[in-house]
Amino acid sequence: MPYDFLIDDIKSNLSQKTIGTDKGLAKIGDGIVNLTYSVAKSIYLTKKSSTKSVIRTGMKVSKTILSNALKNANMRNFAKNRADAHDIADTAEALVAYVWINKKMTLQEIIDLLESNLSSDLLNRKEEITSATEAFTVLLKKMHQFLPEK
Amino acid sequence: MPYDFLIDDIKSNLSQKTIGTDKGLAKIGDGIVNLTYSVAKSIYLTKKSSTKSVIRTGMKVSKTILSNALKNANMRNFAKNRADAHDIADTAEALVAYVWINKKMTLQEIIDLLESNLSSDLLNRKEEITSATEAFTVLLKKMHQFLPEK
Repeated sequence: MPYDFLIDDIKSNLSQKTIGTDKGLAKIGDGIVNLTYSVAKSIYLTKKSSTKSVIRTGMKVSKTILSNALKNANMRNFAKNRADAHDIADTAEALVAYVWINKKMTLQEIIDLLESNLSSDLLNRKEEITSATEAFTVLLKKMHQFLPEK
Repeated sequence: MPYDFLIDDIKSNLSQKTIGTDKGLAKIGDGIVNLTYSVAKSIYLTKKSSTKSVIRTGMKVSKTILSNALKNANMRNFAKNRADAHDIADTAEALVAYVWINKKMTLQEIIDLLESNLSSDLLNRKEEITSATEAFTVLLKKMHQFLPEK
């Protein structure tokens, strides 16, 4: 997306915390996370469908999933000190938005990565939380290379 | 997006109501609507900023905005009979998802169209509702050509 002027100010003062604590980036990232997960989940369920039926669905990805994914990816240091689970989830969303706006990953690449890392029975709520957490952990680890080193 | 197998079943039974009443499409469309509006709003506010500062932000687009936009676009007939405002908003979201998955408009085109149709002071909640409703009305009218005639 040719909208990288939306991160010009961040790029001129680049650090893990500048990106990770930006509330506006988190709001944009919230939209990316929910859209890409919804499409990834739909693809996964459709491919797995025993009756070969198409399944379209969606889910609001919870703050718990995102905050655990960031911690599992060992990227807790992008969040502010003494951050609670909500803050840490916002950080995960901000990182996703930064990488996307900075054109390091497309939505299609994010969808494909999430989809290929989903597993188990996503129609079981508990299994879905575990599986989505794992998929977002892999995504954040992959995004790490596109983020500043400190 | 090469995910048009996600609408194969709809395409084999194509009608305004098949698309407009699909709950799964509405869930995916919810994500598209919120993400594209958040980016469009950020661009609009950044371009208008008197201090030339970058503004990143987001908004969950309300059911009221989407249902009024669909009615203003004279596309109420895509929704089910006796639909309430919530159903009509779901229909708007489903149409957006169908057009996107069917590759008739990209996210970038949706963002650009919304942004170029925003006006007034979006930081004023009441003005934003009016302006967002207008922008989504234009979007839905544009999408009409990519949808079945009945």
